[in-house]
Amino acid sequence: MNNTRRLSLTDIHALSLSTLIEHGFSEPQADAIATTVTAAERDGCQSHGLFRIPFYVKALTNDHADPAAVPTVQVSDSSVVHVDAHGGFCPLSLQVGEPLVADKARKHGIAALAIHDTYNIAALWPEVESLAEQGFIVFACTAANSYVAPAGGTRPLFGTNPMAFGFPRQDQPPLVFDQASSASARGEIQLYQREGKTLPEGWAIDVNGEPTTDPEAALAGAQLPFGGHKGSSIALMVELLAGALIGDKFSHESMAADTHSVGAPLGGEFIMVIDPSHCNRSTNHLVRAEELFAAVLDQPGTRLPSQRRYTTRQQHLSHGVDVSERMLTELDELSQP
Amino acid sequence: MNNTRRLSLTDIHALSLSTLIEHGFSEPQADAIATTVTAAERDGCQSHGLFRIPFYVKALTNDHADPAAVPTVQVSDSSVVHVDAHGGFCPLSLQVGEPLVADKARKHGIAALAIHDTYNIAALWPEVESLAEQGFIVFACTAANSYVAPAGGTRPLFGTNPMAFGFPRQDQPPLVFDQASSASARGEIQLYQREGKTLPEGWAIDVNGEPTTDPEAALAGAQLPFGGHKGSSIALMVELLAGALIGDKFSHESMAADTHSVGAPLGGEFIMVIDPSHCNRSTNHLVRAEELFAAVLDQPGTRLPSQRRYTTRQQHLSHGVDVSERMLTELDELSQP
Repeated sequence: MNNTRRLSLTDIHALSLSTLIEHGFSEPQADAIATTVTAAERDGCQSHGLFRIPFYVKALTNDHADPAAVPTVQVSDSSVVHVDAHGGFCPLSLQVGEPLVADKARKHGIAALAIHDTYNIAALWPEVESLAEQGFIVFACTAANSYVAPAGGTRPLFGTNPMAFGFPRQDQPPLVFDQASSASARGEIQLYQREGKTLPEGWAIDVNGEPTTDPEAALAGAQLPFGGHKGSSIALMVELLAGALIGDKFSHESMAADTHSVGAPLGGEFIMVIDPSHCNRSTNHLVRAEELFAAVLDQPGTRLPSQRRYTTRQQHLSHGVDVSERMLTELDELSQP
Repeated sequence: MNNTRRLSLTDIHALSLSTLIEHGFSEPQADAIATTVTAAERDGCQSHGLFRIPFYVKALTNDHADPAAVPTVQVSDSSVVHVDAHGGFCPLSLQVGEPLVADKARKHGIAALAIHDTYNIAALWPEVESLAEQGFIVFACTAANSYVAPAGGTRPLFGTNPMAFGFPRQDQPPLVFDQASSASARGEIQLYQREGKTLPEGWAIDVNGEPTTDPEAALAGAQLPFGGHKGSSIALMVELLAGALIGDKFSHESMAADTHSVGAPLGGEFIMVIDPSHCNRSTNHLVRAEELFAAVLDQPGTRLPSQRRYTTRQQHLSHGVDVSERMLTELDELSQP
């Protein structure tokens, strides 16, 4: 059944909100999640859109997960702002932390936001875009499910560990990238499996640590970092920043804490925020960035990160989003007792 | 002639220092460069050791290069510290800037150091290690010679743009990685060329933008970023941080400013420094990091970044460094009028 129904973004937000509230999420938690889910649908990132709602609900099977958690903040003289999610979900903690870290960055030029003890099953680009939209340069990372073997290794240890970066632009949404440290997303491998196709080389190894292009063997074995040992170093950096540095879980601990294996990683997120007005004494960073972007785009075949997402956004803002009836049925069933 | 002479690290420093001073470098500039060169020889990184001295000397053919430049600092209430190298070389500016940015990081938890208008032909790991040795978490990047095509593109635009990261360790030197955003170092391609070997796939494209494994075609064409569009995004990030953000040159501008093509990139370096005591309220980040490193090393075939360098360091500290007579002759000839 490939039928779709066209929904406005307001509809998508309302549907997300009501589904989450029915499952015991507090209004602030549900609203923050619904906003993130709606942003993903708006930008055509279906894997982080309505598709995620069941993951949020299933996450509640973990004793530690609290759908009504109230994040607490710890603000001091330090430029490092702490938000403790207390087993709640990341979007609300980000809403709480963003203005605080923005203030610190404006005042001191550079600041950091550490989100602790949070279930994080959203993408990183929404918070990176939100802060970059306010003029900041932003770097964010989080340690996620441990599906990835370190370079040279044979067993999963690192998470897919996304690292995201944002830089503001003149008169248009910021440049943002948000990329896993693994060669592929886990969902991509599952897609190859479903379609009975073989994987590109370099994505995965089997349980014996041998390279494989068989999706089944890959899912049983380990994903590989992107770009060999360089991607592996980045995955390691993410574990150190979002784990060791801020006192939160590593990916493999996060995965172990997901007691019912519902794909709800519990841990930390680390964000660095830079106010460009403290950094540049001679030129306008926005003008200079546009010169660079123009030089990139002058080469046919290139595109800027986030470009495709913003194009989809324009279409969806004007026309709404076609959501599959299957997805809507699933959400409907999720709401049945 | 493969003969070598064994030199102590003191000898290497003295030789570097005297050669540079003979060519008009001020004692502070020469000493800072000699220290970096000696550190590279100590760690077995020959490409950044004595081999680099002629590059420093040749850089002086650029009108803008000043071998006796005195870096000036701009310190304010901001956590972003600026050091203007005034066309001098990076090692001295780093010596000046490091204690200042360390103070800011201790006070505010996170700080940044922007080095402006500098010739930077050293690796990034010495400054990253130096700050991590003091207990900080460090991130550094600089935009270098524009040999790399953006993903999907056909012509060089980005630099090899190294990004380096350091994390302190208990009772041993910090974990440090320092990696180019390109799939290979330019020197590696030149080595393949010299040995008449074909390149691994994925390293380069020819002047028409077609993949090539021919070293000659690669050098005339463009290097590729590591890991496809993800490495390309990192190269772009480095251009934005070390270029647009701090008001310094992009790689292609830096290359254009190298009027005699001596391989002396002029531009900026951007360093972020985090004091872990502001970041972690529950656990010891050093203990936690060791747990992670143990989990990595538990897998046969893995190693930690910088591990090889530290092993070589121990050998060289004990026994000195075997330097080729050819290298010594070259330095000797460089000193002749």
